[in-house]
Amino acid sequence: MKLSILGCYAATPRTLTNPTAQVLEVKNHLFLLDCGEGTQVQLRKLKIRFSKINHIFISHLHGDHFFGLPGLVATFRLLGRVNPLHIYGPKGIKEAVTLLLKLGDSWTQYPLHFHELTSPSPELIFEDEKLSVTTIPLDHRIYTNGFLIAEKEGPRKLDVRAVSHHGVDRCYFQNIKDGKDVPNALGNLVPNRELSMDPPAPKRYAYCSDTAYFPEIVPQIKGVDALYHESTFLESELALATKTKHATAKQAAHIAAAAGVGQLILGHYSTRYEKIALFKEEASEVFPKTYLGDDGLSFEF
Amino acid sequence: MKLSILGCYAATPRTLTNPTAQVLEVKNHLFLLDCGEGTQVQLRKLKIRFSKINHIFISHLHGDHFFGLPGLVATFRLLGRVNPLHIYGPKGIKEAVTLLLKLGDSWTQYPLHFHELTSPSPELIFEDEKLSVTTIPLDHRIYTNGFLIAEKEGPRKLDVRAVSHHGVDRCYFQNIKDGKDVPNALGNLVPNRELSMDPPAPKRYAYCSDTAYFPEIVPQIKGVDALYHESTFLESELALATKTKHATAKQAAHIAAAAGVGQLILGHYSTRYEKIALFKEEASEVFPKTYLGDDGLSFEF
Repeated sequence: MKLSILGCYAATPRTLTNPTAQVLEVKNHLFLLDCGEGTQVQLRKLKIRFSKINHIFISHLHGDHFFGLPGLVATFRLLGRVNPLHIYGPKGIKEAVTLLLKLGDSWTQYPLHFHELTSPSPELIFEDEKLSVTTIPLDHRIYTNGFLIAEKEGPRKLDVRAVSHHGVDRCYFQNIKDGKDVPNALGNLVPNRELSMDPPAPKRYAYCSDTAYFPEIVPQIKGVDALYHESTFLESELALATKTKHATAKQAAHIAAAAGVGQLILGHYSTRYEKIALFKEEASEVFPKTYLGDDGLSFEF
Repeated sequence: MKLSILGCYAATPRTLTNPTAQVLEVKNHLFLLDCGEGTQVQLRKLKIRFSKINHIFISHLHGDHFFGLPGLVATFRLLGRVNPLHIYGPKGIKEAVTLLLKLGDSWTQYPLHFHELTSPSPELIFEDEKLSVTTIPLDHRIYTNGFLIAEKEGPRKLDVRAVSHHGVDRCYFQNIKDGKDVPNALGNLVPNRELSMDPPAPKRYAYCSDTAYFPEIVPQIKGVDALYHESTFLESELALATKTKHATAKQAAHIAAAAGVGQLILGHYSTRYEKIALFKEEASEVFPKTYLGDDGLSFEF
């Protein structure tokens, strides 16, 4: 999985910082997670082939998470897009985007599918043979979901030496990958474990923005390889965080520690802070494997 | 008048070019004309004190002219704006902006006034003691207005030497500025022309984007000091311009020549062109006082 952060600052776009948007490259997909104003320019800056984006997931309908969406939909139209585009987000997102297209008499020539979300519980919203996307209901001022993107376990890996040693015919190779026991040259069944190795562990990424400190999500994100968790504030603004249903860096770290994640990536910094280094300092005290997200950065896991 | 061009490229925001938006500074006002995506970042880049913007004029509801508006309205809210904001634009603009605010449960704490336009004829939409703003109905694929911003004639200027020579009492100075004849030291009426000079000629600016070649506007913009006229295409794409109801640089120049304007500023260049110098070349053949608008440029007239 490769995560590219297009923007990870709260509230207002500024000269050098962008509101929330990120792209997750996984199993031949480019998933766009949130789409603040300026997202399409950031996609160009980072040279992401954005015509390959077929699925957009919007966490909630605050402007800094979706005001870039109508423009992106319109640009896809101008670029002559043909492929269907799927947009997942809270109820109301369809009305908003289609009203703007209607007012401009600018209907897309490509199929535009909206998948509106209303459930307060985790919901499987996308699935193919290689991965799934599930909502992570969060605790914010309006209806908000994070997203859990989970690879599925791949086929078992052929142990080429063992297969050769047992003289297994190549017509059985797919069966071995599928975990089945197969006959050797003499016709005797060989246990699959002797002919194959475990596939690489499937990766999981959890995207959680925006939310108050909300330990209810811990069971769902247990052991993910990477967790992006919002940290709008430092601990000195804890009261403000609580009031506005945002989290502090330390709270994000407590979630990461409780869930035992591989790494924590911080973001959604309030624009009140001139430097973001303190976010890492505060979080690292609780959870050492903390990284600072920043616009233009990418992470592989 | 000082015109700052925030963006003057058509269709899609890109790394180095912005969709349409400009600010006209005139008689203590900052008027924002159109508001494509990224406008608030451009306002910051050009260090325009955008809390001073109280009037926003939107020509039409294509995304590249107003998708930056919801974000700007939201940012004004976050910055704690108190002053009323007036938005003028085609019918539908109120529904669009308010729907987005409603979905985010982000109502403004400052008064937001919409002035929806539907008239096919020029309409006086703003006026104070120093200037007026009138729509310039244009010919585009959807309902579109340009805007004519016209200063009013100021008071006459006191001819200090003449006033002293005639021994006019200072209590009459305002009357002289108002154009009245006033008595001299002997009580004899002196004609106003002998005591005052003409005020500076009031300036006028015409903003015309987007539109096909549309000579019907010429009488309304006759003799303006500056005309911004869209030139989406070069003459080689005339057929495309006609089909999409845009203008070529040469057509813009023909309008400028027919209206006898002080200067022509081009813009709304299609992003298909790598360099815009040809726009000036083509237009200058017809109307020499042609300037290339570009993002970040400003013009004083």
